Amino acid sequence: MSKGEATKKQILDTAVRLASTQGINGLTIGELARKVGMSKSGLFAHFGAKDQLQLMVLQSAADRFVERVMKAAFLEPKGEARVRALFNNWLEFINGGDDLPGGSVLLAASVELDDQPGPLRDFVQKAQWDLVSNIEKAIQFAMDNGDFRPDLIVRDVAFSMYSFILGYNHFRRMLEAPDAERLVRESFEGLMSFARNRKRKEDNGNSI
Amino acid sequence: MSKGEATKKQILDTAVRLASTQGINGLTIGELARKVGMSKSGLFAHFGAKDQLQLMVLQSAADRFVERVMKAAFLEPKGEARVRALFNNWLEFINGGDDLPGGSVLLAASVELDDQPGPLRDFVQKAQWDLVSNIEKAIQFAMDNGDFRPDLIVRDVAFSMYSFILGYNHFRRMLEAPDAERLVRESFEGLMSFARNRKRKEDNGNSI
Repeated sequence: MSKGEATKKQILDTAVRLASTQGINGLTIGELARKVGMSKSGLFAHFGAKDQLQLMVLQSAADRFVERVMKAAFLEPKGEARVRALFNNWLEFINGGDDLPGGSVLLAASVELDDQPGPLRDFVQKAQWDLVSNIEKAIQFAMDNGDFRPDLIVRDVAFSMYSFILGYNHFRRMLEAPDAERLVRESFEGLMSFARNRKRKEDNGNSI
Repeated sequence: MSKGEATKKQILDTAVRLASTQGINGLTIGELARKVGMSKSGLFAHFGAKDQLQLMVLQSAADRFVERVMKAAFLEPKGEARVRALFNNWLEFINGGDDLPGGSVLLAASVELDDQPGPLRDFVQKAQWDLVSNIEKAIQFAMDNGDFRPDLIVRDVAFSMYSFILGYNHFRRMLEAPDAERLVRESFEGLMSFARNRKRKEDNGNSI
């Protein structure tokens, strides 16, 4: 990585961290410049206009999600194991961490941008659809290999999983409910029991 | 209502409408002044500082929610009917309307404010806990009168209901999924089937 690329990466990481707590609209060039110890014009030399920077922040946040949640889950064998890994990774991602102290940038941006047409909203919408489609794939594999019932509606299960994640995010971050994790894990287990192929279990894997 | 009160109400309604699309942080005195045709100083005479106005906007949004979702549902008889009314009213509220074109102000504010300590966040947190507690009450009544199974965990059902509403909001507003309403209604029906007291139905209401 060249010095220029390293500087750019450092600025972008700082910008993602800021957006994580203040939102993508709350990200200001002034504060970012202070945090990285550069002038505003120095920043502009790296990123052009503010909306360019915002788009790169969203892209970087989406890349992290794909890396930590999706790719990590797709290392697991196809079936319920992969669906579980996906959900667990997602929960962990929602919790944030050193590089995302305010939690998921894209989830927050979804609410900020839902009434603001433009390239930022388009980007988030596409990233969210990619996510839904990957969840659906993982569920479909689990039906194909017999872990899940053959009469499941893939999209309904994906909707429930997504909803529970949103519920967890809300109960944890806004309500500060001490039992947020228990709630989301039990809800997910309920969903897994519902989805599981009982026939197969009874018949020791030989049916359907 | 005095002329002063009427003016204040008109300003507040406009402010709630603006906050519905732009968020509580995106609400600017300048734009509000333009919309209501007053000077900024004229606005300040009615509301004091900006954070005062924001708090009144949140209060007004919370009042609307209580009126249209909670009070309307509590007119229904205790039991499953009331839980269903609550959920239906809530869905309708989320859809927005002429006075809330961008949907629920408090739901959006939850995401905007979750990392911003202060009186605005405290207000939203309290309003959300009041809501959870009212959902729990409605579920408890349905257990008490035998509509729901006696072994339900009230809070788990409330969490699922809340999660499905958040999922619906997300799928409808950000993903613009054409089947958002089908998804949320089927998820809710699944939850109701799970919660329902099967024993009672079989025994024609005489058991437990």
